[in-house]
Amino acid sequence: MSDTDAPLVKKVTIIGFGLIGSSLARAIQLHGLAGELVACDASHDACATIERLQLADSVGSDPATAVRGAGLIVLAVPMGAYAEVARAIAPHLAEGAIVTDVGSVKAAAIEALAPLLPAHVHLVPGHPIAGTEHSGPASGFATLFEGRWCILTPPEGTDAGKVAVVAELWRRCGSMIEVMDAAHHDKVLAITSHLPHLIAYTIVGTAADLAEDAKAEVIKFSASGFRDFTRIAASDPTMWRDIFLNNREATLEMLQRFTEDLTALQKAIRRGDGDTLYEMFARTRTIRRSIVDARQA
Amino acid sequence: MSDTDAPLVKKVTIIGFGLIGSSLARAIQLHGLAGELVACDASHDACATIERLQLADSVGSDPATAVRGAGLIVLAVPMGAYAEVARAIAPHLAEGAIVTDVGSVKAAAIEALAPLLPAHVHLVPGHPIAGTEHSGPASGFATLFEGRWCILTPPEGTDAGKVAVVAELWRRCGSMIEVMDAAHHDKVLAITSHLPHLIAYTIVGTAADLAEDAKAEVIKFSASGFRDFTRIAASDPTMWRDIFLNNREATLEMLQRFTEDLTALQKAIRRGDGDTLYEMFARTRTIRRSIVDARQA
Repeated sequence: MSDTDAPLVKKVTIIGFGLIGSSLARAIQLHGLAGELVACDASHDACATIERLQLADSVGSDPATAVRGAGLIVLAVPMGAYAEVARAIAPHLAEGAIVTDVGSVKAAAIEALAPLLPAHVHLVPGHPIAGTEHSGPASGFATLFEGRWCILTPPEGTDAGKVAVVAELWRRCGSMIEVMDAAHHDKVLAITSHLPHLIAYTIVGTAADLAEDAKAEVIKFSASGFRDFTRIAASDPTMWRDIFLNNREATLEMLQRFTEDLTALQKAIRRGDGDTLYEMFARTRTIRRSIVDARQA
Repeated sequence: MSDTDAPLVKKVTIIGFGLIGSSLARAIQLHGLAGELVACDASHDACATIERLQLADSVGSDPATAVRGAGLIVLAVPMGAYAEVARAIAPHLAEGAIVTDVGSVKAAAIEALAPLLPAHVHLVPGHPIAGTEHSGPASGFATLFEGRWCILTPPEGTDAGKVAVVAELWRRCGSMIEVMDAAHHDKVLAITSHLPHLIAYTIVGTAADLAEDAKAEVIKFSASGFRDFTRIAASDPTMWRDIFLNNREATLEMLQRFTEDLTALQKAIRRGDGDTLYEMFARTRTIRRSIVDARQA
């Protein structure tokens, strides 16, 4: 496994060639991590792009065919398609194969996949904390995961050797690895990712509801703060729909806390309470500094 | 005025050398827009930095001295200090001098300044739509205003020639100019800038309230969306306190709309209403595209 001259896995199949799937394919190619790389995507347009960009050794739309003989299968489809894909591939998975995914909610990923996979395969759920606001196979790039964290959430009793293979794959793509419980992952991501996206989608939606002339001005003067939200709110709608449907409770809990804090700030503005406003605005600076120090800025 | 060989104004005084004041000073030096540039800042540390970086021809902490003989005075202090500075400079302003500012709320800027300035000077309020999360005289840079909008909000009856001088100053710093009514400016900025900052401060504050171990994970995994908010929430707390105190009504109105939209999304998540979520997430993408097309991304 630590021999960097030999491929890490003989045959890898990636199902779903969006931003993450296609970036992983590029990184696998760049670092020579697979003896053979098979691409699978339900969209024929995506398959054409994969072929044109030569992102894999072979390309197809049928998951059952794509997984035959693969030692590692990476699900990179929206979470709403997990059950369908799992059903399609289950009878065709090789003995001892590893199935991993890149979905943003881990408890739901395990719930959807575990009951449908045969006992002879190993489920090692994963979540690379990386992305951009762009979607589709053409938007990926090999360095997307460099310097970023990848969280693995193997259910209790998962073969440690199989977890190590998936960890090594991401490590060779440039990531740092963290292993944690799926439920804990979902709580952490609710505040770091799911709530921020929900808020960004909301505020951009609020602006979208303004009258046409006001909207033109919002776009013109967006450099004053708004544009940062629009970048986040341009993320893939199918993916984010599935995230909120799958991490409902943790997201709603964080949303509740956020709403309470927003109400307190609203009250301070209404009352003209400058001291409270200053205090609240000053303490958030230290969080930014910590992120810059942790090189995640 | 269009003769780019001669300085635009013989003597310019900038009061307040934060990010905006010090960036304007650098741009004025770079493009040779002032025959003489005078710096004024209440902080002796800031004055030392201005001297060390040679950001002006002369430096001092007394506004009354700084404005003597100046044809153009730029107020770049927090809005909470406007009245105090206006009182200090009023008796010392040259006949026919132009007073402009860079504050983020224009109706309140006019209310604070106009009654305190002598009748023989010209008030041309301005707001460059540019910035970073950094503060202080060392954080400025000459290209900050390039390709960005600068909004001027001259009260009715302002001498058009004086407005043209201020417009030309910003234009030569690389900005595009828009002239509008102060009240309208404050409404547009409430949605493009003030509400986004309020939201960002809130969500980072919500995260700051988490238990210590959870907070460490928030920082570690911030690349998933959260970090974009922390950049905005690292902006100068004094400046932002003053903005919310001065643009209370427009901000609270936009906050009200935002809260209604957030409640609708919350309801859709709670009910597992995927169609509504998808629809809301899909339409915000077009706004992002417009911003990219308008080259404000």
